[in-house]
Amino acid sequence: MLVALLPGDGIGPEVLVEARRVLDAVLGDAITYEEAPVGGAAYHAAGHPLPDATLNLARRADAILFGAVGDPACDSLERALRPEQAILGLRRALGLFANLRPAKLFAELADASALRPEIARAIDLVIVRELTGDVYFGEKGRRETADGLRQGYDVMAYDEAEVRRIARIGFETARKRQRRLTSVDKANVLETSQLWRDVMIEVAADYPDVALDHLYVDNAAMQLVRAPGQFDVIVTGNLFGDILSDQASMCVGSIGLLPSASLDERGKGLYEPIHGSAPDIAGQGKANPLAAILSAAMMLRHSLGRAADADRIEAAVAAALAGGARTGDLGGTASTRAMADAVLAAL
Amino acid sequence: MLVALLPGDGIGPEVLVEARRVLDAVLGDAITYEEAPVGGAAYHAAGHPLPDATLNLARRADAILFGAVGDPACDSLERALRPEQAILGLRRALGLFANLRPAKLFAELADASALRPEIARAIDLVIVRELTGDVYFGEKGRRETADGLRQGYDVMAYDEAEVRRIARIGFETARKRQRRLTSVDKANVLETSQLWRDVMIEVAADYPDVALDHLYVDNAAMQLVRAPGQFDVIVTGNLFGDILSDQASMCVGSIGLLPSASLDERGKGLYEPIHGSAPDIAGQGKANPLAAILSAAMMLRHSLGRAADADRIEAAVAAALAGGARTGDLGGTASTRAMADAVLAAL
Ligand SMILES: CC(C)[C@H](C(=O)O)[C@@H](O)C(=O)O
Ligand SMILES: CC(C)[C@H](C(=O)O)[C@@H](O)C(=O)O
Repeated sequence: MLVALLPGDGIGPEVLVEARRVLDAVLGDAITYEEAPVGGAAYHAAGHPLPDATLNLARRADAILFGAVGDPACDSLERALRPEQAILGLRRALGLFANLRPAKLFAELADASALRPEIARAIDLVIVRELTGDVYFGEKGRRETADGLRQGYDVMAYDEAEVRRIARIGFETARKRQRRLTSVDKANVLETSQLWRDVMIEVAADYPDVALDHLYVDNAAMQLVRAPGQFDVIVTGNLFGDILSDQASMCVGSIGLLPSASLDERGKGLYEPIHGSAPDIAGQGKANPLAAILSAAMMLRHSLGRAADADRIEAAVAAALAGGARTGDLGGTASTRAMADAVLAAL
Repeated sequence: MLVALLPGDGIGPEVLVEARRVLDAVLGDAITYEEAPVGGAAYHAAGHPLPDATLNLARRADAILFGAVGDPACDSLERALRPEQAILGLRRALGLFANLRPAKLFAELADASALRPEIARAIDLVIVRELTGDVYFGEKGRRETADGLRQGYDVMAYDEAEVRRIARIGFETARKRQRRLTSVDKANVLETSQLWRDVMIEVAADYPDVALDHLYVDNAAMQLVRAPGQFDVIVTGNLFGDILSDQASMCVGSIGLLPSASLDERGKGLYEPIHGSAPDIAGQGKANPLAAILSAAMMLRHSLGRAADADRIEAAVAAALAGGARTGDLGGTASTRAMADAVLAAL
């Protein structure tokens, strides 16, 4: 099994080192790793945030473990050269259309959430976000209006095949959980959403065991604060998913804890912490490695057929937290290394 | 002064009756009122959610006091005939481009928020949402892809004049408050947002006394949960504003409390509670009338030049809450009428 390690920028490399230590402890040398630069690091080294060599490695690999991209030194570059384009480029080139983001409060961390503990404790949901369509990848640009004004535009669109395949992932995910799927759209305003909703309802016919409902995105954002415990699986488009999944992450406390998977049609995936490159704390040994470690666990489960090993890592993370290990984002003083050591000790 | 009363559907009529009682108590007959149907009520009466007579009244009036629209009996109508189209149509026809949504916790209601009380108590912000552009009003429809698939599409766009005028409202609003303006966009992905950001920075040159910063919308959704007290004024586009303003409302507790103003270029405005028509509790005397009463206060301040009267109403609302009056949404048992009576008693 070949895993592509793409550490990227900021705290990306530090957290991937710890994820790798945990993988080594669990799997020994069952996995082969190859590393390549991505994001700002790749721009500085090779003039492009997603060099061909990196993309080719990602194509060859069975799975990709990704750190984070984002580098203030690249802020003034034209958009196509900025670090974030690497992750957009990988999603698109590899057809990683299904982003899975579980959000569940670790019982020990009820105090880390901004929500009241009794509300936060009820959270146990998965957001299924479409990742290769929507206004992210439609035609876009600058043009002049009839009055000679500068205008920026981006075309939002989904076709039925794109909606159908993400709908199936949503229903399949719900089927393995509480069998409740909430589709989020803005069908009272958007034609894209109306098609989205129509196709969701069509696909629902194949999943009579799953209860489907629909929420407008503004209402969903409200409900995620008011009573997030009501959700099991949420399926939504690329743009709404970007917003709601970050909002949901914050509801369970630190974003330093949350992993994500981005899957193609055959289950190959890219795994990354949902946190960013956090340049302000990079290189100081302060970053929380748990999101990266949990991303590695997701990789074992979804792409490498090692569900039992994934369970083992997740249990060790819970045990490390129960034992009191806390990085700064959780109000503690443990270093990145010490936090990972606590996980290794609990394996 | 002519005020158009558009009660609409569900709890709209009940809450407007109470707002009108408060206005009468404060202003006597200084205002002339004319009423017209809108939304589902108008569809049932006249076959269209925004009949010409209603639109003409809205045009003639100095201000519009709006209840709510939304009627489950209209769910299967084609989109153009659905109740929500009335509010979109009014915004567009009257050029109501600037939506102001203050969100501040009434000290007595710290327990109504899903956020921890110490976090909720710090909230005192205004969201300035652009209301007549963006993906709401771009070209939209269904088409076929090259492969013969159904596709829904909506064009997102802003031109520099649209951004400039809402930017000015944002800066002016911030100038009267803590002089901090946060512009929310998704400039790492959208050309529309890149233009938005460029124009915000251009307009900032005219407001050296206001500190401008920029957040991506996913980060903003996160920060509104984590530490909403950091915000003074947020300015954003139509779609992001729809999501973030509902999210912010929930952070301060019940949406039964929050008013909004939608203004044109000369300060004429439409005033409405941010809550919807709540068909489940309509006609039962349970609705919270405070959002409608506070919307009337905003109308006095922004469109009718009666700031002192607006202050008086707002103080009476705070006093009624301090005195313990609570409708069901706030965990109490007061009826709609009793809640308004408490405000009248405190005037
Ligand atoms: C970096 C950015 C382009 C990206 C996105 O918007 O998808 C990020 O916010 C995410 O959610 O992975
Ligand atoms: C009813 C709907 C079209 C409307 C909107 O999206 O603007 C509503 O959500 C609002 O925020 O006033």
